[in-house]
Amino acid sequence: MNPPTHDYFSANRDRILAAWCDLLRIESVSADASALAHCARAAAWLRRWLKSAGFQVEVVLPPDGRPIVWAERPGVPSAPTVLFYGHYDVQPADPIAAWTHPPFDPVCVDGRIYARGAEDNKGQLFAFLQGVAARIDAGLPLPTLRVLIEGEEECGSSSLLACAHDPAWRQRLAADTLLVCDTSMHPCGQPAIVAGLRGMQTLTITLRGPSHDLHSGSHGGLAPNPAQGMARLLASLHDPQGRIAVAGFFDGWAAPTTNECRLAEAVPFDAAAYTSETGAPPEGGERAIPPIHRTAFHPTLEVNGVHAGYGGPGCKTIIPSEAVAKLSARLCPGQTPSRTMDALTAHLRAHCPPGLTLELSDVRSGSRGFRLPVDSPLIRLATDVLTRIDPRGPLFLWEGASIPIIATLQEVSGAAPLLVGFGREEDRIHAPNESFGLDQFQQVMTYADTMLGALV
Amino acid sequence: MNPPTHDYFSANRDRILAAWCDLLRIESVSADASALAHCARAAAWLRRWLKSAGFQVEVVLPPDGRPIVWAERPGVPSAPTVLFYGHYDVQPADPIAAWTHPPFDPVCVDGRIYARGAEDNKGQLFAFLQGVAARIDAGLPLPTLRVLIEGEEECGSSSLLACAHDPAWRQRLAADTLLVCDTSMHPCGQPAIVAGLRGMQTLTITLRGPSHDLHSGSHGGLAPNPAQGMARLLASLHDPQGRIAVAGFFDGWAAPTTNECRLAEAVPFDAAAYTSETGAPPEGGERAIPPIHRTAFHPTLEVNGVHAGYGGPGCKTIIPSEAVAKLSARLCPGQTPSRTMDALTAHLRAHCPPGLTLELSDVRSGSRGFRLPVDSPLIRLATDVLTRIDPRGPLFLWEGASIPIIATLQEVSGAAPLLVGFGREEDRIHAPNESFGLDQFQQVMTYADTMLGALV
Repeated sequence: MNPPTHDYFSANRDRILAAWCDLLRIESVSADASALAHCARAAAWLRRWLKSAGFQVEVVLPPDGRPIVWAERPGVPSAPTVLFYGHYDVQPADPIAAWTHPPFDPVCVDGRIYARGAEDNKGQLFAFLQGVAARIDAGLPLPTLRVLIEGEEECGSSSLLACAHDPAWRQRLAADTLLVCDTSMHPCGQPAIVAGLRGMQTLTITLRGPSHDLHSGSHGGLAPNPAQGMARLLASLHDPQGRIAVAGFFDGWAAPTTNECRLAEAVPFDAAAYTSETGAPPEGGERAIPPIHRTAFHPTLEVNGVHAGYGGPGCKTIIPSEAVAKLSARLCPGQTPSRTMDALTAHLRAHCPPGLTLELSDVRSGSRGFRLPVDSPLIRLATDVLTRIDPRGPLFLWEGASIPIIATLQEVSGAAPLLVGFGREEDRIHAPNESFGLDQFQQVMTYADTMLGALV
Repeated sequence: MNPPTHDYFSANRDRILAAWCDLLRIESVSADASALAHCARAAAWLRRWLKSAGFQVEVVLPPDGRPIVWAERPGVPSAPTVLFYGHYDVQPADPIAAWTHPPFDPVCVDGRIYARGAEDNKGQLFAFLQGVAARIDAGLPLPTLRVLIEGEEECGSSSLLACAHDPAWRQRLAADTLLVCDTSMHPCGQPAIVAGLRGMQTLTITLRGPSHDLHSGSHGGLAPNPAQGMARLLASLHDPQGRIAVAGFFDGWAAPTTNECRLAEAVPFDAAAYTSETGAPPEGGERAIPPIHRTAFHPTLEVNGVHAGYGGPGCKTIIPSEAVAKLSARLCPGQTPSRTMDALTAHLRAHCPPGLTLELSDVRSGSRGFRLPVDSPLIRLATDVLTRIDPRGPLFLWEGASIPIIATLQEVSGAAPLLVGFGREEDRIHAPNESFGLDQFQQVMTYADTMLGALV
């Protein structure tokens, strides 16, 4: 027997696709300040849609930010209150020339919709809401649903992070369960529960030496060289085995449980496939630790960029006057962002090479990492639901990336988060020719329907 | 009593200045391919001048290069043959906006001529030739003089380096004494003999990791990071005390003699003045060695530039796909360029971090360093001559920079080099508002006259 969402999708296919494509046509690129009006249009579109689905809706315009859509629909009083989080903003479409079809003029080819945002997050978000609509249409019970859709996820969620702790927002966001549909299945096609994300912090290091570039002959061996000093400083951050060598950085770090290790190791990792996909073998970081553990359960400290002196063709024999490096750390549960940042800045100050001056800027302590208890009632329920959708059941993924807003929403709403999504590698999110399959769209609908049904 | 050159300058001042300014008006910038015609004009101008002074002149146009002027005037047969080397090409005038007067429209202000090339090398070169002219005018004896003026000194002397070993050039350049007037006095105003220069070699290092920039969250701790790998690789080139840590790099290095040490240390070095001039304290390189020894007698290995990943405002959380660094070494007598380059490339290959691939390009083994025997008859003669000009006598400078062509000319001509010049810090060579004092011009004339007189 087809699930009710399947019949609903079939019966309403043209209307659903037309609405989805309407949303995809809106160029709501959050990184582009000149696209503010498009973000406002996307928020207004969602307001209309949610209203027509029976939600009470508010659109809040934060200072200097993009509108935040909040909606509520009362449901079964005895059921847990659900907060669903998504985002209507999308990545820039650059490089435009690499798109086969215009990025904001969606087309359907071989059962896939191609457009910027087709998956991330307009596709998964709208499919989830269509799952809700299917239940409403079928007269099936729903929990009380709160919907939060922001427009700055792709550029740091700063408006939402700034206002989430306000009492008015605390009230709006209070919930028992936080559902997020912005992640992927495992590449093998099995559904996945993202059971953890790392936190993130960033900073910029500037090392200054001479007041102007010096002749490397007249001054070589005499003037302190910021490019060399930066190399030495950055090299000091890891030991020769690739382990972070910053005193105090691991303070509080929580080792994974035996159960987490077992579940993480159940997910296949193919070093040859990784090498062929990325062009480099998985030999970064702390090589003594199995690859999957390194991104799942261990912090990382990466140099995102370093620039000093001459970079053109041939040679220019100078001692550059300064060197700049960009660093970002990913943090694990137990690590406190303010303390790891203190440890890092203290290390950098202590290791500043002689003769150079160190300046730290853009210091953002950022967000904590989190791991969900894999044996909680919510995760057990989700496991059941996903096993109904795919008899192989879900895999558990601990992702190395960060969604900073999740930890904040968890804290402000008091809700237990559940991150399940149906993205695939071939969706090419953030890249040209982003797409989302109609089969994936229906998977999300079925998941929303089944999960919400299980919660009432 | 005034030296003969003083009277000659006074009597011919207008004519000399007019000619000098004519030469300075020619925009013979060797770095600018579109200025080839200007270089040809400068060479033609020098041909005319040398001819009128009684020289036999040839202008040779090397393939893809700028004309080389060669001239000869027979002199006292029993005297050593003198080869005088100079260059008519100049540095680009950028940034033009920083000039008070147009760089190729010379003006005389407060006894100084302001123009690009006013000192380096058109000024010192032409002043030396005027010293020759003064002796001719006075009917005084001269040695056989060979003059070599090239047009690519500011961009590596590649044409001259390429052809100097040809038998025709070997014949043209054969000499006993090589006089070069392209250096400076000591800042205290005392004349200086440059008793050594370091050799130079350069290369570019590329470290490749992923085939494209990766997400630093999803891949951090897993993918090898070329920016970090480059930091580790560059840091491995020196030990914590700043000494070059490349095995075999010092092979053959000749320690300075006691006499060289004594003479080098007789030159005052003021760390506070250095710091105020360069903006950085003299704490680069091997700090256990006195500052003046580090540039004079020790090799250096400098990072001239390093570039990887993001360098814009704020942060971009990527693992860059590659990192590029530019390196240059300065070599001392005894070190063999091909062997130090072999040692360096072997070190880089041995220390390439796991997961990354190393590519070396623009590998130029370059030139040897040299030191002149300070107790040779030529240096003793020059010391006498300079003591006649300034009773304090000359200081001995071992410069950290390189004039690659000197070692080649020394080898090809068989001549003993002597590097004496009358530049000053305030001449601002290579910078906007370059100038040369008429007093300095006369010092060069007097030196040329006295030195050539001493040689016959």
